[in-house]
Amino acid sequence: MLTREKNELLVRTGPGTPMGELFRRYWIPALLSEEIPEPDCPPVRVKLLGEELIAFRDTKGRIGLLDEFCAHRTASLFFGRNEECGLRCSYHGWKFDVDGNCVDMPSEPETSTFKNRVRLKAYPCVELAGIVWTYMGPPERRPALPELEWATLDADRRFVSKRWQESNYLQAMEGGIDSSHVSFAHRYNIDDDPMHAGTEGLKYLKADTRPKFEVAESDGGLVIGARRTAGDRSYYWRITQWIMPWYTIIPPFGTHNPMGGHAWIPIDDENCWAWSINYHPTRALTEPELASMRAGEGIHVKYIPGTYRPVANKTNDYLIDREAQRERRSFSGVEGISAQDFSLQESMGAIVDRSKERLGTSDAAIILARRRLLDALKLLDEEGPLPGAAPEHQRVRSASLVLPDSVPFQEGARDALIAVPGREFVSI
Amino acid sequence: MLTREKNELLVRTGPGTPMGELFRRYWIPALLSEEIPEPDCPPVRVKLLGEELIAFRDTKGRIGLLDEFCAHRTASLFFGRNEECGLRCSYHGWKFDVDGNCVDMPSEPETSTFKNRVRLKAYPCVELAGIVWTYMGPPERRPALPELEWATLDADRRFVSKRWQESNYLQAMEGGIDSSHVSFAHRYNIDDDPMHAGTEGLKYLKADTRPKFEVAESDGGLVIGARRTAGDRSYYWRITQWIMPWYTIIPPFGTHNPMGGHAWIPIDDENCWAWSINYHPTRALTEPELASMRAGEGIHVKYIPGTYRPVANKTNDYLIDREAQRERRSFSGVEGISAQDFSLQESMGAIVDRSKERLGTSDAAIILARRRLLDALKLLDEEGPLPGAAPEHQRVRSASLVLPDSVPFQEGARDALIAVPGREFVSI
Amino acid sequence: MLTREKNELLVRTGPGTPMGELFRRYWIPALLSEEIPEPDCPPVRVKLLGEELIAFRDTKGRIGLLDEFCAHRTASLFFGRNEECGLRCSYHGWKFDVDGNCVDMPSEPETSTFKNRVRLKAYPCVELAGIVWTYMGPPERRPALPELEWATLDADRRFVSKRWQESNYLQAMEGGIDSSHVSFAHRYNIDDDPMHAGTEGLKYLKADTRPKFEVAESDGGLVIGARRTAGDRSYYWRITQWIMPWYTIIPPFGTHNPMGGHAWIPIDDENCWAWSINYHPTRALTEPELASMRAGEGIHVKYIPGTYRPVANKTNDYLIDREAQRERRSFSGVEGISAQDFSLQESMGAIVDRSKERLGTSDAAIILARRRLLDALKLLDEEGPLPGAAPEHQRVRSASLVLPDSVPFQEGARDALIAVPGREFVSI
Repeated sequence: MLTREKNELLVRTGPGTPMGELFRRYWIPALLSEEIPEPDCPPVRVKLLGEELIAFRDTKGRIGLLDEFCAHRTASLFFGRNEECGLRCSYHGWKFDVDGNCVDMPSEPETSTFKNRVRLKAYPCVELAGIVWTYMGPPERRPALPELEWATLDADRRFVSKRWQESNYLQAMEGGIDSSHVSFAHRYNIDDDPMHAGTEGLKYLKADTRPKFEVAESDGGLVIGARRTAGDRSYYWRITQWIMPWYTIIPPFGTHNPMGGHAWIPIDDENCWAWSINYHPTRALTEPELASMRAGEGIHVKYIPGTYRPVANKTNDYLIDREAQRERRSFSGVEGISAQDFSLQESMGAIVDRSKERLGTSDAAIILARRRLLDALKLLDEEGPLPGAAPEHQRVRSASLVLPDSVPFQEGARDALIAVPGREFVSI
Repeated sequence: MLTREKNELLVRTGPGTPMGELFRRYWIPALLSEEIPEPDCPPVRVKLLGEELIAFRDTKGRIGLLDEFCAHRTASLFFGRNEECGLRCSYHGWKFDVDGNCVDMPSEPETSTFKNRVRLKAYPCVELAGIVWTYMGPPERRPALPELEWATLDADRRFVSKRWQESNYLQAMEGGIDSSHVSFAHRYNIDDDPMHAGTEGLKYLKADTRPKFEVAESDGGLVIGARRTAGDRSYYWRITQWIMPWYTIIPPFGTHNPMGGHAWIPIDDENCWAWSINYHPTRALTEPELASMRAGEGIHVKYIPGTYRPVANKTNDYLIDREAQRERRSFSGVEGISAQDFSLQESMGAIVDRSKERLGTSDAAIILARRRLLDALKLLDEEGPLPGAAPEHQRVRSASLVLPDSVPFQEGARDALIAVPGREFVSI
Repeated sequence: MLTREKNELLVRTGPGTPMGELFRRYWIPALLSEEIPEPDCPPVRVKLLGEELIAFRDTKGRIGLLDEFCAHRTASLFFGRNEECGLRCSYHGWKFDVDGNCVDMPSEPETSTFKNRVRLKAYPCVELAGIVWTYMGPPERRPALPELEWATLDADRRFVSKRWQESNYLQAMEGGIDSSHVSFAHRYNIDDDPMHAGTEGLKYLKADTRPKFEVAESDGGLVIGARRTAGDRSYYWRITQWIMPWYTIIPPFGTHNPMGGHAWIPIDDENCWAWSINYHPTRALTEPELASMRAGEGIHVKYIPGTYRPVANKTNDYLIDREAQRERRSFSGVEGISAQDFSLQESMGAIVDRSKERLGTSDAAIILARRRLLDALKLLDEEGPLPGAAPEHQRVRSASLVLPDSVPFQEGARDALIAVPGREFVSI
């Protein structure tokens, strides 16, 4: 349970809001590189933290992320011409470079110096892992570039997709932190998933359906341990990483399978991007794996063609299949791991009223994550990187392993939770 | 005409509103039994008086009407599993019985007593006449079960349907109280309707198109008499019953035809359920009659498949046919008694601004009905049943008959206006 | 740039707003005559300046423009019966004549005098140029009938269409005042347009893409000169007329081509009618010209069948064709002069926030037009016609011509800018 005031603090991320200010201090996954695939390609609309922007790749391959609306008369630059190192408004021909400078103003006399005084809001961008990232905060507070493990791997070792979710980012992210729902929402899908098949972990998971949770603060967020009995005097641990402010990493099933992770990025207060990443730290993804991901399986989704919106969505009750529900092929009747999650998260309403919740011990990670986000608001004026913004906060892994019951999981899994390039991850 | 303040009092029925509090003191038609046809069938969403609820029939056939959103994290129970005497949320498996008790909380430790402290809002339900009725008020003020004549008949003597109306309940109900519009909105359809054919009443109805209205308060609502000349020194009376707070009974045409009635139930302030009932107190409905009702004729409608919304609706201007209007096959160009009414009622806007009306003598019943509703607000703290809530208020009938012009209709029709089981009703 | 307060003053035109009061002092193009083509035809909904109205042509051919909602119980008169010199509500049969008088009240006793006290809001109408015009202001301030040149020509010399635009009227009208955008938004279409082909003007237009603007106040609005170099010591002038409060006339290309003009009429604050008129003052339009206009070419559009909404619209990104944009067949990728304009105007949002603009010298006409509209608010209580309301303010033309560089355009083009019936207009 949360007071309405604290809930409002957490869910509002537009310009001028406290959480919006915090989020603007981090690098933000903004769009897929494939959306602006080549120099001088058409610009695309991007909405982030309530701001309407336009992204384009200029003639030299540089990426611009500008205010969507021309500085002159506010026409949308979506209709603009991307040519000769700038985006030119189709209304009166004003042209802007990737830094937001007005570099041509052909509607004014050639001698005019007006254009030198005109700038469009522009955010710096970098490309990493097939994603265009941006930084929307004060320049002097810009953090180091992202070093999340999946963001630093060679291209053949990861697959990235994004999906429009019709809800506030927080209830989406809470789903990523919350290991507890896996035993329910995904119960009848865990077996089927080829990524789980035959692992030792799956055996323990099925044998003990009431895990105990232990949550520890890490430098960059939380480490969330779910503990199950694993024979005599030992525990099977599934450990989830939450990296502030919005990354989660799924505990893996066996080292032969790729890992999975997410980023939960506010579009505005009632919509968010759910980014889904599969990656393997030590080998290339196989063609069958990639084919399955491209087909929208696992944590990815099937799209409505020409969009990043799922075919199964709110307007069609997520294609719920009551027969499948009855016959225990799907716990909720919705098909697919991903849709099982977002159908429930969207069903809570665009923004959850957390004053109506009743939280239990299994919600400890969610409670702590909210607290860490609220606490981070107090660090805005401090020196040094914010939690989750430093590279060393990001070089972490989730893991699954068996430990003696006498060993605290943070201790027993210490090495397993650190991402070391080229080193195999730990999972059974 | 009504002040804006009084209009607001009348049209707002959400939690905490005065009229909402009044309405919660009555049994409310909530959904059709056929929507939850058997034990453990899928749950359905129900919205009443602005409250979002979920209805289900448990393994033992008991009906639950609960808050739609799980007490835990507010996921919708629409995605829930209805099994083993309870509805289980698909997110973390919390399970609720028909009384709203949390009977299983598998995400918490087995020893936890947390679930004993968790309840979901639950409203008691009864099934009568193919309808699930609920009571949303304080338990100690629950009235006797409905004894409306149509609700107490054997199943083969009645046919019940419901229809989504895109307007506030009040303007819909006012159409049911208002006999005056029949001569206009339905003018060219009265002859055609096989239910009117060849009746003596129809002859009088057509001969005198300017009825005079007399309205009397009954214990449970209003008795509304529409008087027409019927030869020398006698009147043809068509008498409508309004039973508080939202039932109307149509004056019949001949005793060989079924009677008709309605209930007008707020979904929220801008939508309502129009319930339509045909019934015959002393005989089973015939197969041709039922076929016509199922086909959406008379007071029923043709639905968009899979919904209770009419095919002819606001988005398509109710399929208005200007040729039919010109050629006097339909007064307004809209086809069907039912659509003729709701097209006009919805055209007034979602909520009528009654400060702009100009009411005449033919609106006497509407004026009085509003007054009775407003007056009833003062009775909320009184002992005893509210008007319309007592069984004896509900055992009434509408009627049509000829009386000498010297006899007041309440007197001449006294017996005709009482519903006595097994006794033929009065109509010519 | 405009303060938010001034912007609000300019864009709000509903009842009771200052700009709404000003606009109600002018004759307003309300609907096409063809929408109510004959006596007793079906009524049509008309929304103007935020008021919901119903238009009909009575048995004698007189036009009524009334409040859409019946005075009785506020049912929409869209469902009314248009017959025997009045529009009869389908709910209870109240009937209104073109002046808003209630001429029949069949639901009330024959002896009732109630109907004499009931009136519906009614606005006077006239038909001119295939348009029904109305006047919504105080009767004693009604101005002379419109004498815009195109409104006074024989029917075979003009073609009129209207189009729903999803934006405030002001940003639409500013597009009509703003000659500067032609060189950009329409750049690759100017050559193709058969109306421009082979004219001397086109040669100059293409040779000098940075026109200088000179704007002068006229009695009725503005005269806007765009000056381009035309050889030695002479200028090619394209002169646009803005007639208050909402008419614009496009500078012509050659006297053999029809002229073009527009009217920009608020539907409500977020929508407007863009009226488009082609006309030739001294000859009938040819069949090929009319065929092209009816096909939605030039300043007209292709409609969604049964509506006045364009096929290319906001929901489909105006069918933008990025290939056409890249290959320089269309500057913005949108096809058609008209859609090129309204796509950009609508992209600014329903109502432009003018506090974010950066205006240049090429925006002088827009700046002055706003000022004149704001200044006109101070004239509401003055005697005499408002600017643009007097016939002599309306009898003007746009023109294109070459003048020596020593001659001010208002002087050199004085005669060319006056509309004299039967006199050829001036254009090269």
